[in-house]
Amino acid sequence: MAKEKIAVAYSGGLDTSVMVRWLIEHYDADVIAVTGNIGENKELASVKEKALATGAKKAFVIDAQKEFIADYCYPALKANALYENAYPMATALGRPLLAKILVETAIQEGCTAVAHGCTGKGNDQVRFEVVANTLAPQLKVIAPLRDPRWGFKSREEEIAYAQKHGIPVIVTKKSPYSIDANLWGVSIECGALEDPMTPPPSDAYQITGDPQSAPDTPETITIEFDKGAPVAVNGTHLDPVALVAALNTVGGRHGVGRIDLVENRLVGIKSREIYEAPGAMILHFAHRELERLTLDKPTARFKDSVAREYADLVYNGLWFSPLRNAFDAFIDETQKSVSGIVKVQLFKGSIALNGRSSPFSLYNENLATYTTSDTFNHSAAEGFIHIWGLPAKTAWNAQLKANGKK
Amino acid sequence: MAKEKIAVAYSGGLDTSVMVRWLIEHYDADVIAVTGNIGENKELASVKEKALATGAKKAFVIDAQKEFIADYCYPALKANALYENAYPMATALGRPLLAKILVETAIQEGCTAVAHGCTGKGNDQVRFEVVANTLAPQLKVIAPLRDPRWGFKSREEEIAYAQKHGIPVIVTKKSPYSIDANLWGVSIECGALEDPMTPPPSDAYQITGDPQSAPDTPETITIEFDKGAPVAVNGTHLDPVALVAALNTVGGRHGVGRIDLVENRLVGIKSREIYEAPGAMILHFAHRELERLTLDKPTARFKDSVAREYADLVYNGLWFSPLRNAFDAFIDETQKSVSGIVKVQLFKGSIALNGRSSPFSLYNENLATYTTSDTFNHSAAEGFIHIWGLPAKTAWNAQLKANGKK
Amino acid sequence: MAKEKIAVAYSGGLDTSVMVRWLIEHYDADVIAVTGNIGENKELASVKEKALATGAKKAFVIDAQKEFIADYCYPALKANALYENAYPMATALGRPLLAKILVETAIQEGCTAVAHGCTGKGNDQVRFEVVANTLAPQLKVIAPLRDPRWGFKSREEEIAYAQKHGIPVIVTKKSPYSIDANLWGVSIECGALEDPMTPPPSDAYQITGDPQSAPDTPETITIEFDKGAPVAVNGTHLDPVALVAALNTVGGRHGVGRIDLVENRLVGIKSREIYEAPGAMILHFAHRELERLTLDKPTARFKDSVAREYADLVYNGLWFSPLRNAFDAFIDETQKSVSGIVKVQLFKGSIALNGRSSPFSLYNENLATYTTSDTFNHSAAEGFIHIWGLPAKTAWNAQLKANGKK
Amino acid sequence: MAKEKIAVAYSGGLDTSVMVRWLIEHYDADVIAVTGNIGENKELASVKEKALATGAKKAFVIDAQKEFIADYCYPALKANALYENAYPMATALGRPLLAKILVETAIQEGCTAVAHGCTGKGNDQVRFEVVANTLAPQLKVIAPLRDPRWGFKSREEEIAYAQKHGIPVIVTKKSPYSIDANLWGVSIECGALEDPMTPPPSDAYQITGDPQSAPDTPETITIEFDKGAPVAVNGTHLDPVALVAALNTVGGRHGVGRIDLVENRLVGIKSREIYEAPGAMILHFAHRELERLTLDKPTARFKDSVAREYADLVYNGLWFSPLRNAFDAFIDETQKSVSGIVKVQLFKGSIALNGRSSPFSLYNENLATYTTSDTFNHSAAEGFIHIWGLPAKTAWNAQLKANGKK
Repeated sequence: MAKEKIAVAYSGGLDTSVMVRWLIEHYDADVIAVTGNIGENKELASVKEKALATGAKKAFVIDAQKEFIADYCYPALKANALYENAYPMATALGRPLLAKILVETAIQEGCTAVAHGCTGKGNDQVRFEVVANTLAPQLKVIAPLRDPRWGFKSREEEIAYAQKHGIPVIVTKKSPYSIDANLWGVSIECGALEDPMTPPPSDAYQITGDPQSAPDTPETITIEFDKGAPVAVNGTHLDPVALVAALNTVGGRHGVGRIDLVENRLVGIKSREIYEAPGAMILHFAHRELERLTLDKPTARFKDSVAREYADLVYNGLWFSPLRNAFDAFIDETQKSVSGIVKVQLFKGSIALNGRSSPFSLYNENLATYTTSDTFNHSAAEGFIHIWGLPAKTAWNAQLKANGKK
Repeated sequence: MAKEKIAVAYSGGLDTSVMVRWLIEHYDADVIAVTGNIGENKELASVKEKALATGAKKAFVIDAQKEFIADYCYPALKANALYENAYPMATALGRPLLAKILVETAIQEGCTAVAHGCTGKGNDQVRFEVVANTLAPQLKVIAPLRDPRWGFKSREEEIAYAQKHGIPVIVTKKSPYSIDANLWGVSIECGALEDPMTPPPSDAYQITGDPQSAPDTPETITIEFDKGAPVAVNGTHLDPVALVAALNTVGGRHGVGRIDLVENRLVGIKSREIYEAPGAMILHFAHRELERLTLDKPTARFKDSVAREYADLVYNGLWFSPLRNAFDAFIDETQKSVSGIVKVQLFKGSIALNGRSSPFSLYNENLATYTTSDTFNHSAAEGFIHIWGLPAKTAWNAQLKANGKK
Repeated sequence: MAKEKIAVAYSGGLDTSVMVRWLIEHYDADVIAVTGNIGENKELASVKEKALATGAKKAFVIDAQKEFIADYCYPALKANALYENAYPMATALGRPLLAKILVETAIQEGCTAVAHGCTGKGNDQVRFEVVANTLAPQLKVIAPLRDPRWGFKSREEEIAYAQKHGIPVIVTKKSPYSIDANLWGVSIECGALEDPMTPPPSDAYQITGDPQSAPDTPETITIEFDKGAPVAVNGTHLDPVALVAALNTVGGRHGVGRIDLVENRLVGIKSREIYEAPGAMILHFAHRELERLTLDKPTARFKDSVAREYADLVYNGLWFSPLRNAFDAFIDETQKSVSGIVKVQLFKGSIALNGRSSPFSLYNENLATYTTSDTFNHSAAEGFIHIWGLPAKTAWNAQLKANGKK
Repeated sequence: MAKEKIAVAYSGGLDTSVMVRWLIEHYDADVIAVTGNIGENKELASVKEKALATGAKKAFVIDAQKEFIADYCYPALKANALYENAYPMATALGRPLLAKILVETAIQEGCTAVAHGCTGKGNDQVRFEVVANTLAPQLKVIAPLRDPRWGFKSREEEIAYAQKHGIPVIVTKKSPYSIDANLWGVSIECGALEDPMTPPPSDAYQITGDPQSAPDTPETITIEFDKGAPVAVNGTHLDPVALVAALNTVGGRHGVGRIDLVENRLVGIKSREIYEAPGAMILHFAHRELERLTLDKPTARFKDSVAREYADLVYNGLWFSPLRNAFDAFIDETQKSVSGIVKVQLFKGSIALNGRSSPFSLYNENLATYTTSDTFNHSAAEGFIHIWGLPAKTAWNAQLKANGKK
């Protein structure tokens, strides 16, 4: 009888390397290692060799950087989707794509199960399993770290296990930080960060410099958008991957994009997270300013409530859901006129606005001006004010009466 | 027969000085000048004398600084009310109070009308008149600047009129800026600011320094909140007026609180505004971070939609309306546990977070930790994920079927 | 020099007949009468002759019934858009289409102005003029009934004017009601209806019978929807015009679709309106029930907030606005699986549900059942409840502490 | 060593009777039976005797009808809280009160655990356990029906177990329906109801008559509200319990208050439920109509979004949560002027409106009228329309440009 085949989400790091071996041992299965590349994986060069050396029967490395930025990050950008008005969701946006890559490979390779290395108290297990169940309900999902048999209590125990089984793990200088990185940003957790009253140690940050050490001269960059998506920096057209990488570099140099957040996790607790996302934060800032110029008031207001729901949806693992599709339809319609340029100034950790313009700007200098070129109909105000204030006047005085004050 | 009596909202500046005289002339009325002091009025010292010298029969100067901060600004702060997620609404919050002071004085003095110096295309005319009509429907409202007879086309014409009528106007160095200032912030408009692609000239700013010239060393301050309202800075309890003034000073020194905004005016147009509000922006930042620690997720989410509506309500002149009262009831209930301290770091134009703590914190280190002191029930996740993902799985696959993909 | 040409929204009734003549007289202009047919206009047969006899140079009658139902009413139906959860907006949906027909004809005929017969306190003037200004900013808009020269104080004065000028008005039995009717419904206003404590007189209703006199036997009809739009009744496919007409007949017979509403008008006042819309209300009822079966929970919830905004937008005259386009994109995406049938029972004024089914139903009998065919994972509940309740438990107890109760 | 003591939510029916015995057997514990009376429990008369005969050491019957209606149902009524715009939530509102009674009694009697008889796929287990965990985190919660040892597969097996253990169960005519009833309404489930295409059998309904058999003459009743809460019917002041009971009787007679609903359960599935709630539905209808008269437009709109969230919160078991408190503060503020009377007509299954009036009505006949007593400022409309339509005009034409159509 054929062995069971399990496709494993494999990063090349200690956890997933140990997991590959552990699955072979505990499930008597053939393991297929699947690595989705969405940027910033330091182990990528040798990941395939490592997987095979660890015991995987096959190993796939799939470049999904462009799909990640264009089809996951840019839609969230167009939505202005920041979780709890703060977090650009690098990890949350990456997870559904990595899960999709995994289940697609699993199906192609005839696997009956997929496995991931998420713990039992984080958001990623939810994102991973919801996507897997949605896209491939026929596949079993295995979460070894939630298995009572897992048993590793520390990094040291995992290293010992790796050495015992000849797993090729490069044990570098022990970092106290648990890091998840992709092109859209970096998430950092660790013991020292668990007290919300303690600022993050400076060595926690991976891709941004300390604002105090940043250049003493501001740097102004111009970002061009077409229908809500960024297409050029300083006049040079760049594909999505190159564009975000370029902004990560310049933003990181000026110390922008650091986020220190107490957030509501999906699994019912508050957690404290440190994020770095210089490129994503510059783009969110610029996109929002361009919308101020090009979206009319009722559209902007309603889109704001879409932004919030969109962020919750993504954060909560519901990327593949009908509501996200419907939101994207709404958003794409609103973005038809969100084209133009935004000049932003980076300086010592801050992003400031230096100008914005659009061929579809709704700002009309002749209506807005206080100079003699004014074309606004001043006499209209009187009638407007009368009707505008009528309901409040009526209601306020009825309230006074109800409260016995009149 | 007794002359008509008009109460005029009087600032001591050129516009309202000319207006006092103009009203006497065109309405054959007795004018009573009413100046509400809500902070930062540079003309305040001599305003009473000026009013009388200009022709007013009586002049009242009413100190409302404490009422302004405690009863208008702090409720908006507790609401997180930033107009279009950006503007702390110094002018918008001041207007209803100034209008209230004016109509109360008008009633007390037996006036039959009130007059204001707002133009016909701004928000302030709406705020002023809606409040006057709401609180005192029996009073007529006069808006000379919307009167076809007003006729002044420039500052020079107003100065000539003033000199002709012996109005004591100190004609200082001609500033190109039109400025409205109070303790909660400053609004700046002018011709040069009307092109959204042009950054504000550095001399436009009144109370904040240029971030590039700000101190090279960050300054960390600790703000204490009690039930959502700030009560102390760096451990020193301060009354609302002193507290905001202190933060304006320290914030202004570090160049924080500058806002460059294309916003949707109530009267149907987009305008470009420059604001400075170092104290208000520091407080908004700190308050929001404290709420991340102390508000549960559903409350935080819903309160976010209240914030947006509250800001629109205030901006749109509807301070005295039943919905604002109901919002305040909602907000005050949520603020019962928003007590604690927030440490913020000011540096070269940016506000950053250095720590937050509360006796009513909902962050539980033992639930959040990845160390061995973890008390989170990991095995609960599996059941949670199953039920959480069930609707998306069902709906996604029904959609595929509806789209003919399954 | 050529005379000015004015295109007039002409219904054939007394008001607009008098208006045609009045415009010729007061503007020394050529008048072109434009009648859009969106159903239920009793004067339609002779409207062209009348217009010419009244003095119009040209008269156009344009059949827009299908466009009205398919492109205006059905989108609102798919949106579940009922103004203030009650009014299906027959008049509000018709106005933008009638205004569009008018300005299109005006442009084609080289007119420089359009005119309408709306009064100065209703919603229709707003809808009409906003659409005209949006679609053809170059055209002047004339509203004779707001003109101080209009001067008619009663129906009798208008009749006298008509007779004096030889305007062919059929003066039927004087109805005390002011009625606006189209295929989607009827709006009724009159003096007797102005007291909200008085029920409408029975002769006020135009197309629905009294529920007490309705048939003693219920009638069950089956409505089929395809992607949110109704396509068949009782198994017979019908085009939009025939379908709505058929439901108006059957619904009217059973006395369903009467609405007695105190509503918030756009111009700042509450008004009391009587509506009849048997077909529209049956369709809204059935569509909503089908959505309960086919939309997932988060989509249904968010779409509910779209419904409210959509209704306000339409009611407020903003049909031609970017937000409506974006809403339609959202809604159409959600409707892809809203196909199926709904059985409704009409009886003595009420609409009840007799069954619903869809090939894309999200209801899964095997998950829902309490019988032995149950496939729901009961053990998942424990973990779900634990995590679900964790935040409320934490927050509630922090509140008790904050309130000094713990 | 003392035996463990378990407080059991006891109804006197078969399920909870069997459960009492089962707990004694499987936990070797003393059981205390707790019955909260919130109306309509047919077993109530003998419930105490039964509990003791079944083996409970103590039995408490606590009358909470008034608390239920006044403190749970009326707040939801003032909120207009209907789950999914349809279900008045009799069961959902009763559960937190019953759970509170249970844990209070448990604490008073020194119990270490509470137990309930809810199944593993319904909402009630969630409501029950979340409340217990919130109010008394120290108590263990036992859910025997989720216990793998429970094992009863049918009603017959439970009856056999009861007879074997001498449990006094009156085995009445086997009803195929599972029913939960209290004063605010009845919930009905059963196999035959599980197909959404099948109408409920007529014997499923417990407290409402068939509309076809209802009286041929309509009955008009007048309901008086004070600050949003109903206080009198037909001029007679009634306490909450008597008032709801009276409306259940009259409403049931006319066949109103039947609801046939496919709803989204909290545990991730859609279910089909039948409800009866004549009193609750009459009150919701009347309250909403009174609000149309007394709430201003922005308050009504925002309160609508509160209604939806409030209903979800209650349905989802989060009664004891900070957001509900904050909602109640908001709602109570809005209800200060929701006083007055509403006349409703009941006839053959439908509720219709016959009139409404309030001393704090915002409807002003002189503003609304089209007669000569009109006091509305018609000339204000022109200015209002100009400003109202300006943004849409600007935005629509920018969109045309962006879409290449201009």
